[in-house]
Amino acid sequence: MPKDKEPKLSFNLKTPKGTKDWAGSDALLRDRIFSTIADVFKRHGGTALDTPVFELREILAGKYGEDSKLIYDLQDQGGEICSLRYDLTVPFARWLAMNPDVRSIKRYHIAKVYRRDQPAVSKGRMREFYQCDFDVAGTFDPMVPDAEILRIVTEVFEELGWNGRYNIKINHRKILDGLFEVCGVPADKIRPISSAVDKLDKMPWADVRKEMVEEKGLDGAVADNIEKYVNQKGGRDLLNNLLKDEALVANASAKAGLEDMGLLMDYLEAFGVLDKISFDMSLARGLDYYTGVIYEVVTEGSAPAVASSAPEAQAVQKSGKKGKSKDANLEDDDRSNDPTLGVGSVAAGGRYDNLVGMFLPKAQIPCVGVSFGVDRIFSITKARIEREKSAEALRSSEVDAYVMAFGGKGFTGMLKERMSVCQTLWNSGVKAEFSYKVKPKLPQQFKAAEQASVPFAVILGEDELAAGKVRVKEMGLEDGHPEKEGVLVDLATLPAEVKARVARKREGAAAAVTQQLGGLKVDA
Amino acid sequence: MPKDKEPKLSFNLKTPKGTKDWAGSDALLRDRIFSTIADVFKRHGGTALDTPVFELREILAGKYGEDSKLIYDLQDQGGEICSLRYDLTVPFARWLAMNPDVRSIKRYHIAKVYRRDQPAVSKGRMREFYQCDFDVAGTFDPMVPDAEILRIVTEVFEELGWNGRYNIKINHRKILDGLFEVCGVPADKIRPISSAVDKLDKMPWADVRKEMVEEKGLDGAVADNIEKYVNQKGGRDLLNNLLKDEALVANASAKAGLEDMGLLMDYLEAFGVLDKISFDMSLARGLDYYTGVIYEVVTEGSAPAVASSAPEAQAVQKSGKKGKSKDANLEDDDRSNDPTLGVGSVAAGGRYDNLVGMFLPKAQIPCVGVSFGVDRIFSITKARIEREKSAEALRSSEVDAYVMAFGGKGFTGMLKERMSVCQTLWNSGVKAEFSYKVKPKLPQQFKAAEQASVPFAVILGEDELAAGKVRVKEMGLEDGHPEKEGVLVDLATLPAEVKARVARKREGAAAAVTQQLGGLKVDA
Repeated sequence: MPKDKEPKLSFNLKTPKGTKDWAGSDALLRDRIFSTIADVFKRHGGTALDTPVFELREILAGKYGEDSKLIYDLQDQGGEICSLRYDLTVPFARWLAMNPDVRSIKRYHIAKVYRRDQPAVSKGRMREFYQCDFDVAGTFDPMVPDAEILRIVTEVFEELGWNGRYNIKINHRKILDGLFEVCGVPADKIRPISSAVDKLDKMPWADVRKEMVEEKGLDGAVADNIEKYVNQKGGRDLLNNLLKDEALVANASAKAGLEDMGLLMDYLEAFGVLDKISFDMSLARGLDYYTGVIYEVVTEGSAPAVASSAPEAQAVQKSGKKGKSKDANLEDDDRSNDPTLGVGSVAAGGRYDNLVGMFLPKAQIPCVGVSFGVDRIFSITKARIEREKSAEALRSSEVDAYVMAFGGKGFTGMLKERMSVCQTLWNSGVKAEFSYKVKPKLPQQFKAAEQASVPFAVILGEDELAAGKVRVKEMGLEDGHPEKEGVLVDLATLPAEVKARVARKREGAAAAVTQQLGGLKVDA
Repeated sequence: MPKDKEPKLSFNLKTPKGTKDWAGSDALLRDRIFSTIADVFKRHGGTALDTPVFELREILAGKYGEDSKLIYDLQDQGGEICSLRYDLTVPFARWLAMNPDVRSIKRYHIAKVYRRDQPAVSKGRMREFYQCDFDVAGTFDPMVPDAEILRIVTEVFEELGWNGRYNIKINHRKILDGLFEVCGVPADKIRPISSAVDKLDKMPWADVRKEMVEEKGLDGAVADNIEKYVNQKGGRDLLNNLLKDEALVANASAKAGLEDMGLLMDYLEAFGVLDKISFDMSLARGLDYYTGVIYEVVTEGSAPAVASSAPEAQAVQKSGKKGKSKDANLEDDDRSNDPTLGVGSVAAGGRYDNLVGMFLPKAQIPCVGVSFGVDRIFSITKARIEREKSAEALRSSEVDAYVMAFGGKGFTGMLKERMSVCQTLWNSGVKAEFSYKVKPKLPQQFKAAEQASVPFAVILGEDELAAGKVRVKEMGLEDGHPEKEGVLVDLATLPAEVKARVARKREGAAAAVTQQLGGLKVDA
């Protein structure tokens, strides 16, 4: 290794593969996305749960199928055998099994998970990434919590400013299982065939059929039966058509699923979000543990058009690369550079009634939940902000006022005076900074304030200060503005004056930014 | 293993040793502590940095001395060799070395760190625990950022409601090194002797002297010279006395340290916090990398009394167990069950000018920072809340309104109506819940609201709803209160009405809770 020839710097200065640092405006924007999502979770009575970043290895074993190979293991250093968590769902089920006094809960969890997958940093597929999960555990009347989870999904994306530019696809495992039976799929092939169907958003039917028949040994006629069903998308109309399908309704599983779906649509209507949801028979989801309703949120553009035979949608589907088997992970594809395209799903989830029972057979606690893929949501939101050049939204700190000083010959720098004025501002909760130089030049101080996009300068001059006054100047005002040179303010009223001006400026900016971001709260 | 005889439950249902789940009111209270601390950091212009939970192992190597054995290693699974981070300071230095365009920054980082130490869960010493760090990197005029860090420390504890019930001890590595030289400590013994001095808050002088002379081979007369200095505590008076000490002032290192200390006190005075700080010559801090001012925050009671010879303080010191070597970790001792006693330091830090240079020799970026030990801060805050029985502060969710329904014979449960009213409330940002039962009984619904300490019930009756009205009832009102039975409200004005009542109730509660908690924000 040539590195050995450089004795002074033997460090490999990087973060581990598939991980990255989050700094500056990216970190701030991501924090705002977190608090927007957490606010929605709390609005629905969510209570926070935080679990350790690693679990005993046996807790994770047997939960992720062939993706178990992607789990990060800790070295055996002479204690328990542990692994980094792969998702937030299995730790939640482990926690429920460990806490027998909790039989129902709405919990949320925003934290990092770890997958030793091949990273694709530019596409946002990382080995360390955040998930934001909301789950409802407990035995309740059918479809009521399921409907609230879908309501939460719409609230999150509306508050993030996506203004309906997303598609919530729903389906039901019992409908799928029933239709596979009706079509003639042998019982042992139902899960593999379901996985093949799930690729329909990335592959044309011809390729999926090939996988079913050639790889998975399904009778071609059975595959053709399946095609008729899984190409269907819609809303209540589709549900009503399926209810008229005598073969389907005669199947107990399909019938139960269709009844659930009818109830769900009623409840979604009461929640005012039925129009945001698309009943999509091709949605199957990879994870084995789902037992009821399943859903996936795709952004406009990455979603296949609802009319399945539209030539455009077919073209988009054909250009998508062949996806590998899907699981709780939110998979990438790479259709386009448009940030609203090609990031795959941005949220996904469903009902899983048997997972807790894998830890504690006597405790069957039904659960339903959703996981938001924040790294993808971040990429899309950031691209939109950059397109719209919203400087306010891309600041790396949130400072309101920069306290500076100037003077003529014999100027001392007024360091202690600047400190004292900062103290007054901090005491009132105003975010304020000052130069760490003893004698800074005025242009340096203005430059520092400008670079950090600080909206207001508080300027100390010796004579003015002696008279108990300082100058408050809004940064970036145009020549000729009546307050271009700032206004003199009594020291005693300075914090209130700055607060009022910050609030006024923010109100004005908020209107503009709300329009740009479509609602994402700019102040976390 | 007897476990093998239980085939049905082969899982060991627990979290790994030294880790725990955070749920319910504990998780909510800890989140509030995080946001209180983060708000202070942002008020001082802090910008967020988030680094991966694991680093290349070579990044951590050689930074923690003998405590390196406590680092968690990841298993070699055929890629890079990584370890879990041990603190947030080394990853920050690594990030600075990797980003040559950043030469000055105020960064904060709130995240978990990992130490394979012997856990003492009841005392809050865990293997996975949170740190909240604020650091200023960059070349500035002396002691200006150092003073702001100490101002930040006071703001954090005041906002947490500690009302001065803490002691910030400060000292300076250059003063210590100088006085050791003046006392006659050989150069190669300065670090070990410094470590021994650092134990003076846990051990009486006689034991520390014994360690110096018997374990570390120091001349007894030199130890006696040291005693005269390290027993001293005070403020400006102590500084002035030391400046009159000719031998000390003749030492270049001590002189530089004393000059720094004078400047620091001037600045702390300008920041209005000089009275909160105690200049303590016995504070040495274990970590090798400190180069300037050092500090440690102890809670009232766990701190030795400032007058070093007070019999009470001596008694407390003698009852303390012999501490093991101290490092960046915030060590336990076990003096008492009083939550303000015996948790050791709750925050600590100092100036470290050479750490970044360990990664990139050509880039010397001086740094100064502080780390808050949140788990300890949590334990103390929670104990105080429990003592004061503040139900509001110990809720596990933040729901404002529970939407319920009742009716006579033939009552349908009004599920969709409850959903629709919830929708209206959520649309206005009101946190609301409802029962997931189709036909819940009224007492069940009241019980659920009570158990979650929800402050308001919104009650739907069939006749009232037909007239466009619902009943808003404050929970827990006494018999005879004019609004005991609730008030009828137009559906159209319901969200505004609930919001106004929540705000009014909160204002009243806030006054009471502020008194109880001394200021900790109850609404994050």
